[in-house]
Amino acid sequence: MSSRHVFLILGMLAALLPAELGAEPSTGAETNAVTTYRQAHEAAILRGFAELLSMPNVASDTENIRRNAEYIRGQLEQRGARAKLWQVEGAPPIVFGELEAPNATRTLGIYVHYDGQPVDRANWTHPPFEPVLYTAAIEAGGEPRPFPEDGEPVDPEWRIYARSAGDDKAPLPALFAALDALAAAGIPRSSNLKFLFEGEEEAGSPHLRTYLETHRDRLDVDLWLICDGPAHQSRRPQLVFGVRGVTGFEITVYGATRNLHSGHYGNWSPNPALMLAQLLAGMKDDDGKVLVEGFYDSTAQVGEAERAAIAALPPVDEALRKELGLAASEGGGELLAERLLLPSLNIRGFQSGGVAETARNVIPNTATASLDVRLAKGNEPQAMVDLVEAHVRRQGYHVVREDPDLETRLAHPRIAKIEREGGYKAARTEMDLAVVRDVIGAAERAAGESLVLMPTLGGSLPLYLFTDLLAMPVVIVPIANHDNNQHAPDENLRLANLWYGIDLMGSLLTMD
Amino acid sequence: MSSRHVFLILGMLAALLPAELGAEPSTGAETNAVTTYRQAHEAAILRGFAELLSMPNVASDTENIRRNAEYIRGQLEQRGARAKLWQVEGAPPIVFGELEAPNATRTLGIYVHYDGQPVDRANWTHPPFEPVLYTAAIEAGGEPRPFPEDGEPVDPEWRIYARSAGDDKAPLPALFAALDALAAAGIPRSSNLKFLFEGEEEAGSPHLRTYLETHRDRLDVDLWLICDGPAHQSRRPQLVFGVRGVTGFEITVYGATRNLHSGHYGNWSPNPALMLAQLLAGMKDDDGKVLVEGFYDSTAQVGEAERAAIAALPPVDEALRKELGLAASEGGGELLAERLLLPSLNIRGFQSGGVAETARNVIPNTATASLDVRLAKGNEPQAMVDLVEAHVRRQGYHVVREDPDLETRLAHPRIAKIEREGGYKAARTEMDLAVVRDVIGAAERAAGESLVLMPTLGGSLPLYLFTDLLAMPVVIVPIANHDNNQHAPDENLRLANLWYGIDLMGSLLTMD
Repeated sequence: MSSRHVFLILGMLAALLPAELGAEPSTGAETNAVTTYRQAHEAAILRGFAELLSMPNVASDTENIRRNAEYIRGQLEQRGARAKLWQVEGAPPIVFGELEAPNATRTLGIYVHYDGQPVDRANWTHPPFEPVLYTAAIEAGGEPRPFPEDGEPVDPEWRIYARSAGDDKAPLPALFAALDALAAAGIPRSSNLKFLFEGEEEAGSPHLRTYLETHRDRLDVDLWLICDGPAHQSRRPQLVFGVRGVTGFEITVYGATRNLHSGHYGNWSPNPALMLAQLLAGMKDDDGKVLVEGFYDSTAQVGEAERAAIAALPPVDEALRKELGLAASEGGGELLAERLLLPSLNIRGFQSGGVAETARNVIPNTATASLDVRLAKGNEPQAMVDLVEAHVRRQGYHVVREDPDLETRLAHPRIAKIEREGGYKAARTEMDLAVVRDVIGAAERAAGESLVLMPTLGGSLPLYLFTDLLAMPVVIVPIANHDNNQHAPDENLRLANLWYGIDLMGSLLTMD
Repeated sequence: MSSRHVFLILGMLAALLPAELGAEPSTGAETNAVTTYRQAHEAAILRGFAELLSMPNVASDTENIRRNAEYIRGQLEQRGARAKLWQVEGAPPIVFGELEAPNATRTLGIYVHYDGQPVDRANWTHPPFEPVLYTAAIEAGGEPRPFPEDGEPVDPEWRIYARSAGDDKAPLPALFAALDALAAAGIPRSSNLKFLFEGEEEAGSPHLRTYLETHRDRLDVDLWLICDGPAHQSRRPQLVFGVRGVTGFEITVYGATRNLHSGHYGNWSPNPALMLAQLLAGMKDDDGKVLVEGFYDSTAQVGEAERAAIAALPPVDEALRKELGLAASEGGGELLAERLLLPSLNIRGFQSGGVAETARNVIPNTATASLDVRLAKGNEPQAMVDLVEAHVRRQGYHVVREDPDLETRLAHPRIAKIEREGGYKAARTEMDLAVVRDVIGAAERAAGESLVLMPTLGGSLPLYLFTDLLAMPVVIVPIANHDNNQHAPDENLRLANLWYGIDLMGSLLTMD
């Protein structure tokens, strides 16, 4: 272990002590100035946020999505940035901006997405694009109340309800307020900034690669701050350093050319549901270990910093098992956070014949399973499915891409059709990079308490476009409360989280 | 091997030589007389059959089903039988009749069902209860033609189209014509007869047990002739000596209390589709042998007569595999007919999560499989499922009858809900009983060619009510052509098969 590692781990362990036991947070002058500014302008900041939230922002709503983009460009320009809309035919624009700092030591990229999930208006308490302020979460008995007048006291437990309040417009007022606060206090920023605000993340970012490839020469930064996602379930702020990649495939095995009467042919005609059960059963052991040869070989080693961060995470496994009704989890008691650093092979569906009221006394003619493969750092999507396919072949299966014809059926007692999906790699930034350590420090100063540091999320986002295509480190910087109802009706942001976001932005923009 | 066995087997082997190579069929005087009578009365026999077929006969159609029963009782009485309708509340009546013979050496029971499958009129060429005569099968280019006048020549390849023409009204005109022919020729019957004509077989015979228990004292016979089913696919007449029993169950295994995001929880939360795949995979080997301990132990030994009959069957396995697109069948090449003499364990459905367009990146919260167990002679339905349950427990599963509550889930890492169905035993009559040998001989005389002798059908019928409840041997005596479209639109009977049925009845009613 290098001395640098030791230093980092000690630093992290100190940072992860419960806040009430830790040293006074080292809130610098910059953070104090930002906090003071914010406290004096809370009502105005909320009005600005409400204005942004009142613009419908579903990616497919071309006219409104452009209204959002134009509005945000205006907000950047008001703060001295050069800003423009990049436009790929048929896609929502990307709002791109640049803002230099006189004595910048680095360039930070700031990613936010301004589009939101589609809305199902019938299930919302209020129309999703008419922001409403509540005194607390609705399910906790909160009541609607008017937006505050300037100077009126604001309770940080109030919540603002609207689509994208949490996911993912919240970082925008946080950024704007932080820029305003630093300007008002005459505090210089320490980094040049590049803004990349996407308008179709919730639609799967279908054009993000094109945008990044087209404008690659403008995207040279030291680190991307991916401003998205919620705080940790423990309510503590978190930083996240990666996401899993994903791919998937569907596998179909074949019995006779048609469903057969199980009386007339049972015991004689092979049953594809059994064949597929046997094939899948051999892919994992009882403890969840994938038995496909080579499945774990390409996975990147996990560093000391990451192991230390995992060891310091708030313990959640036991509570999760209780909540989910699980007497045991896979991996012989390994922590969830550790397990997310490995690739996974998951049966998301298995279908053959019928059950319950659709059960018939037949030998089904096919059985199909759908699997997803979550990828850890180092795993290539297609190479991982290659390994699974090799495993299938080793079990004596003839692998095809389309339903077999009669000749093929008669030539091979075991046939498996494997249909592959696309997919993408994991993205994970090593936590011991210098710039990453700077971000951790800045975020801790803003939070005034220890952070949850997650080496990776279990879910998948195409962050590999940043880490692989652009070859830049990324840190995911969440602001929203964990219970923000993202992707659901009654999405909301707790004001304390917005205030944290402003402080966080102030701290990040001024970090040494 | 006893000398009686040797005699029987030699006799059967001779009988099974292809007809054109065999000795002249030993058609006795009785059969000749019946044939002569039939040839002189074909038009009238067809008119009578059409009258019967014109009565709608779906079991739930209370009024019409009773019309059928009354009509059939009348037909029996016209032929000197004492006949009555047995009636259980809410069930179609059973037509019961008795007809003694002066010097009877035995009593034969004759079972027919006069109800038919429900009809889907839109898919029929003609209304299903308006019998139409065709010059050949419709799909072979047959044309409709008028019913013949008395004395007009009748082509045995003509077919009569109507619901229940094959399944299962055909034996009734065959029986009536045979009785008429014997009476006209003054030939005495050799057996007393008891008629048991059921009206809800296609509805699953829900009251047959009640009827038989209630009237048990009237049902004392030496053998039941179960007149139902089609000839062998080779077009040769067959006799069948048993059916498989059946039961089934559904098994559900559990993951978390809800579907989980496969990214956030994959590799940590157990996947019930995989667990169920592993559980089912261990129940059978690659060759289709059931690995559940004791699964084959209760199965009755197969006698020499049955083995000889199987060896003499027309070879069908290779052609079936080709037709069904199977490169191999289970059991290492054992014949289908042999495999039917063993109990089977069949996955008729497996359902967990979604595939294709319904696939979602989740760990499903449950997985369910539906299985049927076909039973061979000697197997008790519930005892067989007991064995499977014991196997499940040996894999570490806690077996429950209802979805587990949270406490149960937290106490047991593996939980399987097993929901049992009812079911019934197999029925199989030993082929070397004296009365059975008499039936085989009589049927051969009527057929004028060797018969296909099937120790058991693969399918299931509640014949155990005859073999176990009444403790009588049964022989299934099919008449209909194999391509009679039973249970389907355009059901039909080929006239050659009706003529065979008449000869067969004549032969059976006069056998020594």
